Amino acid sequence: MSDQHFDVSGRGFKHLTPTREALRLITSRVPEKVLELEEISPSSALHRVLGEDLVAPVDVPGFDRAAMDGYAVNAEDTYSANLNSPIVLRRAPGRSDGTIVVRRGEASLVVTGGPMPDGANAVVMSEYAKETGEGTIEVSAEVHPSENVSRTGEDLRRGALVLRTGQRLLAQDIGMLAYLGYDQVKVKRKLRIAVLSTGNEIHDGPVASSGRIPDVNRPTLLNAAREIDCEPIDLGIAVDEFDVIENKLKHALNSADIILVTAGTSVGPRDFVPQVIDRLGKPGLLVHGVAMRPSMPTGLGIVDGTPIISLPGYPVSAYLAFLEFVPALVDHMLGAHSLPRPVVSARLLRRVAGVLGSRTYVRVRVSEIEGSIFAEPVSISGAGILSSLVRSNGFIIVPENVEGYEEGASVGVELFRPVESRNAVA
Amino acid sequence: MSDQHFDVSGRGFKHLTPTREALRLITSRVPEKVLELEEISPSSALHRVLGEDLVAPVDVPGFDRAAMDGYAVNAEDTYSANLNSPIVLRRAPGRSDGTIVVRRGEASLVVTGGPMPDGANAVVMSEYAKETGEGTIEVSAEVHPSENVSRTGEDLRRGALVLRTGQRLLAQDIGMLAYLGYDQVKVKRKLRIAVLSTGNEIHDGPVASSGRIPDVNRPTLLNAAREIDCEPIDLGIAVDEFDVIENKLKHALNSADIILVTAGTSVGPRDFVPQVIDRLGKPGLLVHGVAMRPSMPTGLGIVDGTPIISLPGYPVSAYLAFLEFVPALVDHMLGAHSLPRPVVSARLLRRVAGVLGSRTYVRVRVSEIEGSIFAEPVSISGAGILSSLVRSNGFIIVPENVEGYEEGASVGVELFRPVESRNAVA
Repeated sequence: MSDQHFDVSGRGFKHLTPTREALRLITSRVPEKVLELEEISPSSALHRVLGEDLVAPVDVPGFDRAAMDGYAVNAEDTYSANLNSPIVLRRAPGRSDGTIVVRRGEASLVVTGGPMPDGANAVVMSEYAKETGEGTIEVSAEVHPSENVSRTGEDLRRGALVLRTGQRLLAQDIGMLAYLGYDQVKVKRKLRIAVLSTGNEIHDGPVASSGRIPDVNRPTLLNAAREIDCEPIDLGIAVDEFDVIENKLKHALNSADIILVTAGTSVGPRDFVPQVIDRLGKPGLLVHGVAMRPSMPTGLGIVDGTPIISLPGYPVSAYLAFLEFVPALVDHMLGAHSLPRPVVSARLLRRVAGVLGSRTYVRVRVSEIEGSIFAEPVSISGAGILSSLVRSNGFIIVPENVEGYEEGASVGVELFRPVESRNAVA
Repeated sequence: MSDQHFDVSGRGFKHLTPTREALRLITSRVPEKVLELEEISPSSALHRVLGEDLVAPVDVPGFDRAAMDGYAVNAEDTYSANLNSPIVLRRAPGRSDGTIVVRRGEASLVVTGGPMPDGANAVVMSEYAKETGEGTIEVSAEVHPSENVSRTGEDLRRGALVLRTGQRLLAQDIGMLAYLGYDQVKVKRKLRIAVLSTGNEIHDGPVASSGRIPDVNRPTLLNAAREIDCEPIDLGIAVDEFDVIENKLKHALNSADIILVTAGTSVGPRDFVPQVIDRLGKPGLLVHGVAMRPSMPTGLGIVDGTPIISLPGYPVSAYLAFLEFVPALVDHMLGAHSLPRPVVSARLLRRVAGVLGSRTYVRVRVSEIEGSIFAEPVSISGAGILSSLVRSNGFIIVPENVEGYEEGASVGVELFRPVESRNAVA
């Protein structure tokens, strides 16, 4: 324990860094990571981040095709046809090689997406065409040339950019890859987020009266990493000793892209983590103390290109600081973008207080009552474990320059669970 | 092929069922499914649907604990202490059994979350306490009884309901389960969604000029099922023959909770699927033709308790009908609720036309340009494969009673990808 450490411990935080500034400080020194690419099958690529631009290798459609079920015809034959005076066409005969040519006065059955037979230039929908017997088709509507036909290359021209580097692959993208014949795609490997808990008093075990506390932070954060499509690495629990924490982090630097450490981040005599980060390598600790409630004692640093975040020991604080920093950092390192959380507008059932100068996360329960949406702050008793996050379904973020919101005010609530339906009678 | 089939094929759809009504018809006959429960470890339970109510087996915290790093004291000793006139306390001695009792005039180091020593009733934060030498602590702020202490049961009372049946487990819920000592939880097994493509012309292979079309619908829908945390079952491709389709579906009824079939759902001579559904069992086909654009030819039925949805062959239509019906059906069958999709408000760069009487999905590209958000409809040429869904990042739903929205109007856009940032200069 250095003097420096004790200096810090006595004073609390002299300066709180706004969270946006803290994130900028980190991302400006962690360039978009040049990740190894993995070549995988599209069938296992859901939600992976594409590592290459993909173009259409062929025209799509690759041939003129019917856009409706019906009969391929020469449009000119149908002019003036209507329900009252249908025209009659002959079924086009198949040729010896299995192909069909539709000549004037002829029609040939086609299915949606199927190739247009040679000679035809339009499709009469099934609804307006029926077989009337021996090889004749009655058409009761006129079509113009190209009607109900998809032309070669209409959907995608050969060489057109279809999916870009950095895009997260959705179900429809994988369908498109199958269509274009990609049986392998290059995706960025998943970022590895290592999670270390610290504290002499915590353990992996049930609540007991022994005085030891079950570790909540690791299970929460390992799963939070999964929720943002990262690969979690469990570093276990370290006792509150400088060397033990240092060794664990040094080891983790070999495998992790981002390291999260919980507890030991404040300014007490056992709060070694920020100092360990600063000693591990350059540039070391960049921020200690963020203008955010809860989660104020959060520290952020970089060691040899790897971001290390020192999160508070309180589970709610640790989790909210995770939400504030980690998804944005992951997007930055992957060169990707994520969907925002859904937001609903709700009327406040009680006043919500912010902390001027800090970004305040207020956990709320959002309910729909008789068609209106209401938000009620979830009461936080003492230092609450996680129950405020388990009982709430959303949060309000009170920005740095806002004192709070009055009862009855309409506020935007970010949801992490769906709005509850409550009947007034229930 | 029955006469009935041909009757239908000639007429098109006589009646289009509103999508909400179609969904109600299905859900009212498919009760919340009584699914087998799986007993799994919380560490593999992320996003699974809980199959039991879980209560706190113990008080949380299980003992009075420090809510801050600092010194446990008797609050009464600190009255009138301040920065200018600190009071001095003695360090409480450890007893032979390792425990500590804090008597009047004494203080003992505590860490956040750690147990309060007997005798103490408050914690002075580290910032206001420092060791001044041989076993003495200088305290420069007063605390009241219970200050910075979390009382037994303050967060959760033993027996309190913590997580409910039907809840999807989030990261913080898994942290809570660890805290409460649950090493096994009962979750509903994942719903199995089976996907069958039909069509003589489609195959699992690349685009070719042969006239065969790569199957886009299966890869898209199997992954769409994964996106909503279901287990996909690949039923492959069936040729357009009544018996072949019937056998595939009959077989799938043994394993699937929901069956999706693409193509063959319209009213053409090869559109067997709705009729197969109707013949397979009771009550059979309930809806054929929905008031939705695209996706109008969608059919919905139930066979022996299993919903079967007959989706159009066009990939965009199939996928949008999936979005309209399947997630809501899955939630219903699981007794769960899902987060809504994020919605942004955007200004329309071009007019958007709906179809009166139908619910119209308009694919758009949403961009932020100099701080404002704009939505531009993605042009749909002909019957487009999937490119409108690959190029767009959201959609506008024009309800049944709206003709359209004018250029410049502000509309809500449901996002499935993040908003693009475009600089005016770029």
